Amino acid sequence: MTDVLQRESASSVEVDRLAVDTLRFLAADMVQAANSGHPGMPMGAAPMAWALWSRHLRHDPSAPDWADRDRFVLSAGHGSALLYGLLHIFGYGLPEEELRRFRQLGSRTPGHPEFGHTPGVECTTGPLGQGLGMAVGMALAERMTHARHPELTDHHTYAIVGDGCLMEGISHEAASFAGHLGLGRLIVLWDDNSITIDGAVDRSCSDDQPVRFAAYGWHTQTIEDGTDVEAIDAAISRAKADPRPSFIAVRTVIGHGAPGVEGTPKAHGSPLGESVLAQAMQQAGWEYPPFAVPEQVRATCTALAAAGAQEHADWRAAYSALEAGAPERAAEIRRAQDRTLPDGVGDALAKVIADAPRATRQSSQACLTELTRLMPELVGGSADLSGSTGTAIGGAIVTRADYRGSSIAFGIREFAMAAIMNGISLHGGFRVYGSTFLVFADYLRPALRLAALMRQPVIHVLTHDSIAVGEDGPTHQPVEQLESLRVIPGLQVLRPADDAQTAEAWRLALERTDGPTALILSRQALPQLPAGPAGDHPATIELVATGSESSLAAAVGDRLTAEGHVVRTVSVLDRSQYSPDPRATTISIEAGSTAGWRGLVDLAIGIDEFGTCGPGDEVLAHHGFTVDSVLARVREHLDRP
Amino acid sequence: MTDVLQRESASSVEVDRLAVDTLRFLAADMVQAANSGHPGMPMGAAPMAWALWSRHLRHDPSAPDWADRDRFVLSAGHGSALLYGLLHIFGYGLPEEELRRFRQLGSRTPGHPEFGHTPGVECTTGPLGQGLGMAVGMALAERMTHARHPELTDHHTYAIVGDGCLMEGISHEAASFAGHLGLGRLIVLWDDNSITIDGAVDRSCSDDQPVRFAAYGWHTQTIEDGTDVEAIDAAISRAKADPRPSFIAVRTVIGHGAPGVEGTPKAHGSPLGESVLAQAMQQAGWEYPPFAVPEQVRATCTALAAAGAQEHADWRAAYSALEAGAPERAAEIRRAQDRTLPDGVGDALAKVIADAPRATRQSSQACLTELTRLMPELVGGSADLSGSTGTAIGGAIVTRADYRGSSIAFGIREFAMAAIMNGISLHGGFRVYGSTFLVFADYLRPALRLAALMRQPVIHVLTHDSIAVGEDGPTHQPVEQLESLRVIPGLQVLRPADDAQTAEAWRLALERTDGPTALILSRQALPQLPAGPAGDHPATIELVATGSESSLAAAVGDRLTAEGHVVRTVSVLDRSQYSPDPRATTISIEAGSTAGWRGLVDLAIGIDEFGTCGPGDEVLAHHGFTVDSVLARVREHLDRP
Repeated sequence: MTDVLQRESASSVEVDRLAVDTLRFLAADMVQAANSGHPGMPMGAAPMAWALWSRHLRHDPSAPDWADRDRFVLSAGHGSALLYGLLHIFGYGLPEEELRRFRQLGSRTPGHPEFGHTPGVECTTGPLGQGLGMAVGMALAERMTHARHPELTDHHTYAIVGDGCLMEGISHEAASFAGHLGLGRLIVLWDDNSITIDGAVDRSCSDDQPVRFAAYGWHTQTIEDGTDVEAIDAAISRAKADPRPSFIAVRTVIGHGAPGVEGTPKAHGSPLGESVLAQAMQQAGWEYPPFAVPEQVRATCTALAAAGAQEHADWRAAYSALEAGAPERAAEIRRAQDRTLPDGVGDALAKVIADAPRATRQSSQACLTELTRLMPELVGGSADLSGSTGTAIGGAIVTRADYRGSSIAFGIREFAMAAIMNGISLHGGFRVYGSTFLVFADYLRPALRLAALMRQPVIHVLTHDSIAVGEDGPTHQPVEQLESLRVIPGLQVLRPADDAQTAEAWRLALERTDGPTALILSRQALPQLPAGPAGDHPATIELVATGSESSLAAAVGDRLTAEGHVVRTVSVLDRSQYSPDPRATTISIEAGSTAGWRGLVDLAIGIDEFGTCGPGDEVLAHHGFTVDSVLARVREHLDRP
Repeated sequence: MTDVLQRESASSVEVDRLAVDTLRFLAADMVQAANSGHPGMPMGAAPMAWALWSRHLRHDPSAPDWADRDRFVLSAGHGSALLYGLLHIFGYGLPEEELRRFRQLGSRTPGHPEFGHTPGVECTTGPLGQGLGMAVGMALAERMTHARHPELTDHHTYAIVGDGCLMEGISHEAASFAGHLGLGRLIVLWDDNSITIDGAVDRSCSDDQPVRFAAYGWHTQTIEDGTDVEAIDAAISRAKADPRPSFIAVRTVIGHGAPGVEGTPKAHGSPLGESVLAQAMQQAGWEYPPFAVPEQVRATCTALAAAGAQEHADWRAAYSALEAGAPERAAEIRRAQDRTLPDGVGDALAKVIADAPRATRQSSQACLTELTRLMPELVGGSADLSGSTGTAIGGAIVTRADYRGSSIAFGIREFAMAAIMNGISLHGGFRVYGSTFLVFADYLRPALRLAALMRQPVIHVLTHDSIAVGEDGPTHQPVEQLESLRVIPGLQVLRPADDAQTAEAWRLALERTDGPTALILSRQALPQLPAGPAGDHPATIELVATGSESSLAAAVGDRLTAEGHVVRTVSVLDRSQYSPDPRATTISIEAGSTAGWRGLVDLAIGIDEFGTCGPGDEVLAHHGFTVDSVLARVREHLDRP
């Protein structure tokens, strides 16, 4: 914020006090009206939120999608009432009636912040730790954007995290990654209130958090009095000045100011009750009606918002200057922001289609290599398996010294990878992919769910997609993963069978802008399927397969045809698009759980047990994935009375 | 190990050198024979493994299930060839022919160590970080056993972890938990070889690991020369003397001694090749044939094994003395080890069945309260949600000052909770449960999969099991989780509808000794269903439901009956046990994904989209879970031509 405003608001201790109490009592009022929610966190964390939003946050409430705004992530998402209070007083178009409908069906103030649902909410939080992971992704996206377009990029990412966020494993992965990449524009405030749902934090945790974050290469500070707005302000200023990512431990009291409740787990997840709330107001000298925002607070926020709008206007002028001076680059920036594809994607993908057998992970690598040339906004990498997953495409790796690359070494951190991908996507300006083995999709599943919930078009490249993985054994052989992904609402799951289908899968993934895609790819080489549709000829048997089992199905089909059956063989890229032929006996062949196929076909051939260690071909044979074994199952089915 | 033996083996520098090379070349030979696998880790980590196994490990290779043995966990499971080499030379009944069949179908030497498959393998590892989590569980189980039976308990837990283990988030959760509980008998050796699959560790990670572990309250040491057996031995001795859990960073060279390959990612996951292997042997002065174990090494290991067998005999004598002096306690110990249930479990569970409606999480709490009285070996807790999940049953909490309790405060660490549960179960002597909200089963899924793979009878209490969660919104409302659990092979998934079914679910969970169980419980109160079976009368419509939808199904059934249909309503606890009536129109009602129901019934009524924030009843109605909405769906189905 501008110096003038900073001094003005900093000089007004009274406004600070009023604003902090406004945020506290708005939150308590919301929870009270809903008779449900979490008042304690907002009441304790209101001073740090006010210090940040009044002294530092670069934003324009009239334009929540301004590309160069600061990002604010409430990782402790159960404290949503604090965020709604901030959005309300700063004029984000969240009127009092919405605050009064906190946690009600159809309101814009749901129990946890939901991206796409409320203007100004940068990401969906609540599943603990993921907000921090997304904030790291946003901070990385800022650095990567700055490296490409420094004249248009000057923002920070702020997050407020709770004890739960810091206990979750993803906090380790995300903070370690941020430290490694030196994401100095990331500033994390820890609401250190010593209380979790079950009681005192020291019932289950003794971490020295600042020391831990220092071990990751972060700048760390501790604020002993979490009500001291000036001290928090100063700490944030020091954090901004330091080149490392910053962790600020702020000692707070949960449910601050609520007599008999503050500092205890009772303040965490239940309304204060009318009586306690009245006492708290009295104690604070708060004489306003429910949901009131004092005029001085309103005026201060309006002035701050106006200053933010001016910064936004300055930025727009800079963008216009770029448009005038470098129209192609400006258009590229806009195209990436809009998530539209450049010309030539179809032609580029057509180039990868060849004749020789190869693994679809290799087909995918060929696609990625072509796409990256066309789409500078396409960035990504793997959880330390780039050679295996076909994501080592030779581009420069993003480092702390140079953020211009398009390859990201996520490290052996699947969950953070997926959350960081979400953060990069939410930041905007990029399309992002990440990769690991399909079996380890289990490690990142909570972030994939959140991608689906937030409708972010991230792309997960999941390879080594069946028991054909072979010698690494059952720990590395996915069986149930494919089905478990298909049940996530809004996740597009594509399992291509050859080059052509892999190219099609990449096209579908990139054309989708309102949800995530999982590409399920083989480790082993697969033959190229004959081109052309399966045809609409009448058939008595329809064999349907995906991915690597498509060629097995074709071979089985040939044998059945030779025996006089009229067979159609279908290789489907996306099972949700498959309509079984009602006139035929339908049989699915897929090296994975049959649970979801059983409702589609008459006979589902799959694997509903864990795999086995051994060479891939032998493992497939052991579990019945040979032409003869499948034929025997088919004949047994056809011979049933 | 005894002092005499320690001095003997320590004095023999030549035997140390030979033994370390034996382990290195056994591993390289295995990988070479399989033409697949990871030689680098065993070659680098052989000295620390030998230092540990020759100087410290308390074990009896002739009795791998001795309750008071030290536990050794190879968390870096891809280094399995190192473990197989150790088991081979120490006489665990893993003959040379099994080493020669490394990674082959049906061998006892699969690509990653598999519990239950190879004698001496304490747990299945490979999915990174989970070995550390299980080691923490084993170390906690040791302390809890010691607190109850000090005269029979004197063992340590050792783990070797790699860079990948330490990057994974679960390492944070598990190490933080171990530090908090002061698990001083846990000693972790870090194979600090600076290399991951994709390249140098510093490509993706800059953590100061000793500082990080110190922040968790661990004792930390660094060994600069990872080939120095004496230095590692001394560090382990210091670690044992320190009351804190210990972290020993051991600098190693991946693929040590393999010319042109050592110290590079090439050593990680590919065979060395005949030529490099021959050069490595020549360089080491190794003149033995493939898979050879020099006589001095064999003799040393035999002597160490004999000493271990003597310690085991001493322990058996102590147990016999207990049997004589306190036969009931001895019998209790044996019963817990054998996982048999005490008398009276059925009667105890019958006590909880009442008439008033209540949430099944509360029914479960009543069951747990009764069971804990009968079964001192039943231990567990929650990921900081004990008040919500019905696991706050009033027992003493395990603390670093007193491990006698039966309640464990796992903290906000779902994934580590599940891995620690696996470790406690693998340790033996306990039945363990853990709990969180069903939606957060996603966070712990990789460890639940491993429980199923290892056939460990851990019990997951997963509550708040549907969109009826209400105001916390879609982030907290499970939709796809129930189905995603049902596809995990070997996981028993039970969703009770009332007190009687909840009691039955607990009985089934406890009677099962060869695999995990998930209890899926409601947040909201549910009516008690009428007793008795559904009956075998002919029906034209069969309504099937689980858990909270059972009463909805009953109400719908009443309406259909009133309309003249012949209806059977079935409430199933375990869907895998449901056989649809082939003569009836079958309709399922469950507030979750319909994917798995569609193969079972004619019409599956469920929810295949994310939930919505609002009061629970309104959310249910919004998604069609009212009698009228369900009836409309049923009628529409029946009216179809």
